[in-house]
Amino acid sequence: MAENRGNLTSYRPDIKVMDCTLRDGGLVNNFEFTDEFVKDLYEANVAAGVDYMEFGYKADKDIFDEKEFGKWKFCKEEDIRAIVGENDTPLKISVMADVGRTNMKRDIPPKSESVVDMVRVATYINTIPAAIEMANYCSDMGYEVTVNIMAISTAGENELDLALELLASQSKAQYIYLVDSYGSLYPEQVRRLADKYIKIAEKYGKSVGIHAHNNQQLAFANTIEACSIGVSLLDATVSGMGRGAGNCYSELLLGFLRNPKFNIVPVLKFIEKHMVPLKASGVVWGCDVQYMLTGQTNQHPRTAIAFTKAERTDYAKYYTEITGDE
Amino acid sequence: MAENRGNLTSYRPDIKVMDCTLRDGGLVNNFEFTDEFVKDLYEANVAAGVDYMEFGYKADKDIFDEKEFGKWKFCKEEDIRAIVGENDTPLKISVMADVGRTNMKRDIPPKSESVVDMVRVATYINTIPAAIEMANYCSDMGYEVTVNIMAISTAGENELDLALELLASQSKAQYIYLVDSYGSLYPEQVRRLADKYIKIAEKYGKSVGIHAHNNQQLAFANTIEACSIGVSLLDATVSGMGRGAGNCYSELLLGFLRNPKFNIVPVLKFIEKHMVPLKASGVVWGCDVQYMLTGQTNQHPRTAIAFTKAERTDYAKYYTEITGDE
Repeated sequence: MAENRGNLTSYRPDIKVMDCTLRDGGLVNNFEFTDEFVKDLYEANVAAGVDYMEFGYKADKDIFDEKEFGKWKFCKEEDIRAIVGENDTPLKISVMADVGRTNMKRDIPPKSESVVDMVRVATYINTIPAAIEMANYCSDMGYEVTVNIMAISTAGENELDLALELLASQSKAQYIYLVDSYGSLYPEQVRRLADKYIKIAEKYGKSVGIHAHNNQQLAFANTIEACSIGVSLLDATVSGMGRGAGNCYSELLLGFLRNPKFNIVPVLKFIEKHMVPLKASGVVWGCDVQYMLTGQTNQHPRTAIAFTKAERTDYAKYYTEITGDE
Repeated sequence: MAENRGNLTSYRPDIKVMDCTLRDGGLVNNFEFTDEFVKDLYEANVAAGVDYMEFGYKADKDIFDEKEFGKWKFCKEEDIRAIVGENDTPLKISVMADVGRTNMKRDIPPKSESVVDMVRVATYINTIPAAIEMANYCSDMGYEVTVNIMAISTAGENELDLALELLASQSKAQYIYLVDSYGSLYPEQVRRLADKYIKIAEKYGKSVGIHAHNNQQLAFANTIEACSIGVSLLDATVSGMGRGAGNCYSELLLGFLRNPKFNIVPVLKFIEKHMVPLKASGVVWGCDVQYMLTGQTNQHPRTAIAFTKAERTDYAKYYTEITGDE
């Protein structure tokens, strides 16, 4: 079993926190955040000592209609600057670029022209070569880069090994991300997978990040489990806001980490001012029964999202639907 | 580090599940469950393969006024029998007896006169001698017995070691319970504590149980962490219903365990029929911010319960209140 690095009371300066509230949370409300929400979140993250804030996606407007989404689906340079100016803070700014859904040559300018610091390339295991191409393009343009391999809980182990080796050896990304897309992984599995990721990444001078979903109420547990054995870039969202069951809660993670630079109070103020009204307005996420069931059965949460939207509560019938023969 | 027993796909026949929905959940609604709720929960537990169902407390009516609580605060023999008859099922019936709040000689009859199978003695670390006396009395009366040591996260390590050794060597209880009363323990700590409990318990032919609270969304994670290294009696409640942040969710635990006797569907039906309306009626529990904060700071949730009842959302102010100098 992989050994721990540090213990509960030590702190590791390599550990950094990424706030993904706008990006993963945008999947809940179609990226329709008010500017005040975004500005206050940015300021809360700066005050809380959060290392990175992800504003949203760099989606291709030839694929997605700009009229159908809020602006953080596209993260135009001028929209980010309207919030952060020149971002004269220690907080770094991140955007996510999906393989096959981003026009990188048109929409990702050289770093010298952008206030963005990091591009996170999101890929499935079968598009790793395209992810390497995008990662290297973004790195050459001057950005910090991560590659996030999604939906690994349905990938074959051998295929994952090959993909990780290829990615680590061929890409210029600084981080490789362990992503629990379906919230189906248990801490025991995360420990084993994180150990695998770390061994391959470190061979090539890279680090490992984790992005966990909360379908089985394990996002925080899995994040700190991965952290304890050396994963160093940790994703979280305020109040866990994110697709379906949501993510690791920032307020839990910041309270756990022992680095004195982190401060939970600005996040608590943000929750009071923005998340309480947002929830009251009817925006729904969190680990309800339907998400537990897709997590337990290692499935994409799309049927659970539909179940939620339909305001169904017939959980037993739903369970037979998603585990049935048809 | 303690070694795992079994792995994710094996099953250990020693693992048993205890449903505490009425007992811990009763702390949320003052034990005011309808008979239909209790009967349906009993039948759901039987159908789900749950091993034990705890009906409530054996509270002393000289201390607690019977008019102020629902009947499951007192668990009279006739009230239990009105639900279960002779309990002609594999499900065993449990009640909890608090040290100092139970008149055992008056209210705990010989097992031959009772449909109850198990008495769980709840104690603080400073009342272990009284807990041993109660455990031995109940054992002599013919019951299975556990001793549950509460609030250990605030006890000194040396005091805990001494208490465990005394309890294991002197009591006739079959199980000693690791209880995370404040939901403040992290999986890494649970692993270390569970290993300690198991080593002492096994020396005297006893087993270990776990009762986790969900303040930091770790009740399920901590329960399966303890389970993985040999804790064998696992507490859970339907929808996590329990005091404050609540407990480990039955629907998560039953879906996790690999013993084919467990069946999640009756629990899902119960949730649809009873827990959805119960929540809609305004009964509140779950891991809200205020509970996370008492968990993080290793405090009794009583201030968070008051914060919830007052419908406050000024989390930052609350945080300064509970961490301040006064």
